[in-house]
Amino acid sequence: MKIMVFGAGLIGIPIAYDLAKDPAFDVSIVDINKNNLDAINSKTVISKINKDLSNASTVSEVIKDQDIIVNAVPGFMGFATLKAIIEAGKNVVDITFLSEDPFKLDKLAIKNNVTAIVDCGVAPGMSNLLAGYVNTIFDKTESILIYVGGLPEVRECSHDYKAVFSPIDVIEEYTRPARYVENGKLVVRSALSDPELINFPGIGKLEAFNSDGLRTLADTLNVPNMKEKTLRYPGHIEKMLFLRETGFFSYNEIEINGQKIRPIDLTSKLLFLCWEMKQGDIDFTVMKIIVEGWKVEKKVRYTYNLFDRFDEKENIHSMARTTGYTATMVVRLLAEGLFIQKGIIPLEYIGKEKTCVDFILQGLKERGIFYRETQEFI
Amino acid sequence: MKIMVFGAGLIGIPIAYDLAKDPAFDVSIVDINKNNLDAINSKTVISKINKDLSNASTVSEVIKDQDIIVNAVPGFMGFATLKAIIEAGKNVVDITFLSEDPFKLDKLAIKNNVTAIVDCGVAPGMSNLLAGYVNTIFDKTESILIYVGGLPEVRECSHDYKAVFSPIDVIEEYTRPARYVENGKLVVRSALSDPELINFPGIGKLEAFNSDGLRTLADTLNVPNMKEKTLRYPGHIEKMLFLRETGFFSYNEIEINGQKIRPIDLTSKLLFLCWEMKQGDIDFTVMKIIVEGWKVEKKVRYTYNLFDRFDEKENIHSMARTTGYTATMVVRLLAEGLFIQKGIIPLEYIGKEKTCVDFILQGLKERGIFYRETQEFI
Repeated sequence: MKIMVFGAGLIGIPIAYDLAKDPAFDVSIVDINKNNLDAINSKTVISKINKDLSNASTVSEVIKDQDIIVNAVPGFMGFATLKAIIEAGKNVVDITFLSEDPFKLDKLAIKNNVTAIVDCGVAPGMSNLLAGYVNTIFDKTESILIYVGGLPEVRECSHDYKAVFSPIDVIEEYTRPARYVENGKLVVRSALSDPELINFPGIGKLEAFNSDGLRTLADTLNVPNMKEKTLRYPGHIEKMLFLRETGFFSYNEIEINGQKIRPIDLTSKLLFLCWEMKQGDIDFTVMKIIVEGWKVEKKVRYTYNLFDRFDEKENIHSMARTTGYTATMVVRLLAEGLFIQKGIIPLEYIGKEKTCVDFILQGLKERGIFYRETQEFI
Repeated sequence: MKIMVFGAGLIGIPIAYDLAKDPAFDVSIVDINKNNLDAINSKTVISKINKDLSNASTVSEVIKDQDIIVNAVPGFMGFATLKAIIEAGKNVVDITFLSEDPFKLDKLAIKNNVTAIVDCGVAPGMSNLLAGYVNTIFDKTESILIYVGGLPEVRECSHDYKAVFSPIDVIEEYTRPARYVENGKLVVRSALSDPELINFPGIGKLEAFNSDGLRTLADTLNVPNMKEKTLRYPGHIEKMLFLRETGFFSYNEIEINGQKIRPIDLTSKLLFLCWEMKQGDIDFTVMKIIVEGWKVEKKVRYTYNLFDRFDEKENIHSMARTTGYTATMVVRLLAEGLFIQKGIIPLEYIGKEKTCVDFILQGLKERGIFYRETQEFI
């Protein structure tokens, strides 16, 4: 079976490695930047294709013989690439964190007989799968609360942050208004608002703030209270608020000595130098999902705790592992015909089927990623 | 007597107003920007001259009939303007916070029979005068410690800071290494280092950090321990360190979409919008000078406390009052022939003469600015 990965970034490459270990898969990877492709271990059997995916006709051309596509391009070009893949009638697993509403492509996907799994990372991603799963078990779900963050283990200079994602995508989390569901109503909060300190044993206190991570959950689940918050080391919120309020995240051009410049472009460039997760930088991913509701007339709380650390043996960042292996397990789910529904599919849809959830959790476990479930009466 | 003010900024204008109240003075003001000149109250008898002072021949031309010049241009052009004034043989009072060593112009000033009073503001300025004064009283001075800050009364957005100075001059305080004297040795510390919280009754806790404010004191006084720290609202240091460490204060060009830009230029432009002290913004100035030493075989501490607030009646910012009126009192000192030494004169030289110190303190008192002195045995 032919699998193609779009984007040879810090997540795309580990995805390709994981898929290439499977004898059933014939794996290729596409990137506009030859240097990115050159970084791929030459001992692997991954075909490298140096093409510009911002061109829709290039997309349809390059995937014409493929079976499943993993879309791992940067967020700003995610929607256009996803659309081109669906137009070409190919099944796709998307991790681009695109800002547009993916359901706009639902009719097209159904018409073209395509299964397009979107937001297939950690959160959005596993958070949707597990919240959707518990929602199916419960007679009535009362609340879903998700805390998630990926952080460097060593806190360097005044940043305390590094990521495998593009800075411009990270900054989106600090600017895109956060949508919540509260008492059955959709509410919108400013990103970075409602700071709270939460203790994570073994890590220490982390700072949680509102971010727009509910994504499709806000529309697909009928749960009266849903909230997602991002985790950083304490102090990060204030710095990001400061940059935002000063105008450093602005997309509006300003004139400097006769030249026009968008502050966001300078900011992304400078932050990239500080935030770039480098080979060997140790990172970890932490997530806590708390779902409360009623089951056989008893009030119950399900909690999932994820703590994942940099893979020292394979030299793969935790953020890449946790995001990428969710995607590769969903690729396998499709490849094995375990999930066949057509259209735009967020992971909460897959969460309705216990066999699918178990399949993904088992695959992650084999890769050393554990979602520890606890159940309690409350 | 003809007095000319260079620079019609937020400090230059109040200086001109104060001088123009004196029937003995014929006051004019020069600025490159006509809008700045237009902001001057038309009821005053101040002549406005719209000229570019970055040209040395313009400087000599414009001052040829003048008696005393007040140099209040932005810091980056301060040294060149000061030099042109001294070359033209005119007495001058400088408040530009120039980054160069003013003593480089000492020989020229002596040769041209010029009294050039430099760093004639609050700190550097009054701090030098009072430290110099106490050093003359003491048999042996052990330490001089100066805390100083100008702050907005209302803490807005995530900045908590506004100033009457150009952002690029304020940023200098966050980047220029701070020179201290410790146990008789000159030491250099990074700007923004050694944060400490200090309580100021009626204001609350302020954050003090190392800044390069000793200036000439480090060279002119033989005191084994001298230190100056700048005061801001808590949290400011971390934000400024963050900007500095990320590269936002860098003067090195970086390329953004084919254009070359210096990050400092964008940063100054964005910060200007947040930091600009506007008409009617209430500000205050706080300074504490602690001088310890031996007097007739007893150990003594002299403390000077300044707390000055926005002048609501005259609508003049405290930072402009405290800086500007120090300069105007020194102009009067020169005009009345009370200080006649030639060369480059920092205020600690004037501080050696009690009559001069009393003259300046009395003038400031008449303008509502009080330096409260306490003496104690320790």
